[in-house]
Amino acid sequence: VPKRRYIILAEGAFADPHVAKTAHGVLRYSDDDVVAVVDSSLKGKLVTDILPDTDRTAPIVGHVADALMYGATSLLVGIAPLGGSLPATFRAEVLAAIDAGLEIVSGLHELLNGDEQFVRRAQASGSRLWDVRDYKEAVPLATGAAKNAPQVVVLAVGSDCAVGKMSVMLEIQKAASGDELQAAFAASGQTGIMISGDGIPVDRIISDFVTGAAEQLVLNAPASCDVLLIEGQGSILHPAYAPVTFGLLFGSAPDLLVLCHRVGQTAIYGFEDTLIPPLPELIRVHEAIVAYIKPAKTVAIALNTSGLSEVDARAALDRVCAETGLPADDVVRYGGEKLWRAISAAVPTTCKPQRAKSARA
Amino acid sequence: VPKRRYIILAEGAFADPHVAKTAHGVLRYSDDDVVAVVDSSLKGKLVTDILPDTDRTAPIVGHVADALMYGATSLLVGIAPLGGSLPATFRAEVLAAIDAGLEIVSGLHELLNGDEQFVRRAQASGSRLWDVRDYKEAVPLATGAAKNAPQVVVLAVGSDCAVGKMSVMLEIQKAASGDELQAAFAASGQTGIMISGDGIPVDRIISDFVTGAAEQLVLNAPASCDVLLIEGQGSILHPAYAPVTFGLLFGSAPDLLVLCHRVGQTAIYGFEDTLIPPLPELIRVHEAIVAYIKPAKTVAIALNTSGLSEVDARAALDRVCAETGLPADDVVRYGGEKLWRAISAAVPTTCKPQRAKSARA
Repeated sequence: VPKRRYIILAEGAFADPHVAKTAHGVLRYSDDDVVAVVDSSLKGKLVTDILPDTDRTAPIVGHVADALMYGATSLLVGIAPLGGSLPATFRAEVLAAIDAGLEIVSGLHELLNGDEQFVRRAQASGSRLWDVRDYKEAVPLATGAAKNAPQVVVLAVGSDCAVGKMSVMLEIQKAASGDELQAAFAASGQTGIMISGDGIPVDRIISDFVTGAAEQLVLNAPASCDVLLIEGQGSILHPAYAPVTFGLLFGSAPDLLVLCHRVGQTAIYGFEDTLIPPLPELIRVHEAIVAYIKPAKTVAIALNTSGLSEVDARAALDRVCAETGLPADDVVRYGGEKLWRAISAAVPTTCKPQRAKSARA
Repeated sequence: VPKRRYIILAEGAFADPHVAKTAHGVLRYSDDDVVAVVDSSLKGKLVTDILPDTDRTAPIVGHVADALMYGATSLLVGIAPLGGSLPATFRAEVLAAIDAGLEIVSGLHELLNGDEQFVRRAQASGSRLWDVRDYKEAVPLATGAAKNAPQVVVLAVGSDCAVGKMSVMLEIQKAASGDELQAAFAASGQTGIMISGDGIPVDRIISDFVTGAAEQLVLNAPASCDVLLIEGQGSILHPAYAPVTFGLLFGSAPDLLVLCHRVGQTAIYGFEDTLIPPLPELIRVHEAIVAYIKPAKTVAIALNTSGLSEVDARAALDRVCAETGLPADDVVRYGGEKLWRAISAAVPTTCKPQRAKSARA
């Protein structure tokens, strides 16, 4: 597959990690090139000014028209707003890219291909409209088959949306590369699919079949992989998205859990009266409820310490480690090695210990 | 609305309460007439032979053709199989009804209107194809607004699918009629919608929006009603359908829960290694998890004692009452009065006690 060369559209939102989640994910983890970001409020800056942990030096420009000279192949709609609608301010920019013949890549619920004007103009210019969230294959009902998958299944769970569940699994996968135990990543959301080129956008699946979609993520895992790292979604506490989270938790039947949390966050974003309980309680609740389907053990905490100083980040990690008795790390800051060690050490304790043996053989 | 006159198609399944759930629900609770049931394995019997608790005396016949002389307006696809596909044996019967110009009513996931042959033949005969599960209105994302609804919201939850959650709420509504507190029923599934003429088939909604659909059930409640009785779906333990259950539980933000259980059932139907815990534990788990969204209290147990003798049913009810400390009844057998009393007694203990006062005033 030839690499894409993206212009990323994140008008008015590029500095907000919640809203520009898709932009940040692709900039951090995709092998594709990014030639420019569009956000008129940050015009003149570089991507590294906003995301200093990346080596992306692309410019931030005011309009799609200002980036057309960089030889882009595609425009990425770089946001994941609650509800998944295209903001009105994005419309003219998308049309400019369509008219320039660029491929448009969007993970929104509101489909490009459901918009008559976009479709008409794309037909005229030859632009392709890729709705990543519009999953076309039939999803069967869950059968419980994931429980018997040969791989050790690891699921990222979290205290909220947008705390870093996808990044955590991608960093752990990176850390595992070259190890005897083979790890694979399975995307459950649009950004993960854009990055890995495969997966199922589970939050877009009809609710009766969301567990079935999660089961398919496991059944479709590469036969060669020993450990399957499944991107999580939402939170079991989330007033809007919990059903998606439970779909992954029950349908993928994980052996191991990695709990993701943003340090200092005390309530669900956008639902401020839904409080996040202490992490030990959150671990207990996850393990108690998934045990009705299949026992699973939390093996590590992935803490998002972005915004904290080095000293404060280390202190937060120590505190969480003491509080939970589990290894804790910020994988975006320090890499996924520590959490991968926690996972591989736990493999022999799962019901699939042969995975550890075969890797050692 | 003129009454429908149904032929109910339940070929090979009419005696199975799991599979023929839709048929049984409509026969028990709909105001529509039923002129015949089609099930060649029970040909020659009457509906009352299979459902002695109803006064439906319609004949059971071998084919749709054998029932056309009874002046039916509609054919009801009377089953709700796991996965929601139309069985191959049903096809010729549906076509016979289409060719006779009958309206076809189906609650299956597999849509009548998605079947080219059905659509073509219906166009030719003038038959209308009503897919009850194909909800056409836009469902917004959940906002948490159900928490502030003026009504006392009661949700039926259960140890499994098909234990009687819809019947329980319809019987309780019946028992409430004429009371000072006004009770309304809100359907969340296809059979409930067929019976009540309104509702949202929540299991058919995209998983990101299933909580939003549950919230709409509350926000759409009649302003005059004091107590909203929401039909439940699935079980929080169900390996396939739990996401739908959590969607209702979180999105409708109930004040009170009624726990429904089939006496003697120890595992989830079709998932025999998923065991149903003791009812007191099930109550604790429901209340603990929903409390993250909004506290709710379980006020009664609805026990399905079908198949038990009178003596055994009474003994089972006493046992469950002692075990849980809650009023317990089989509402299909004995009516919904006892459970309605438990609900109305609990109204002043909710965060909406003004409902009880205004009813008494």
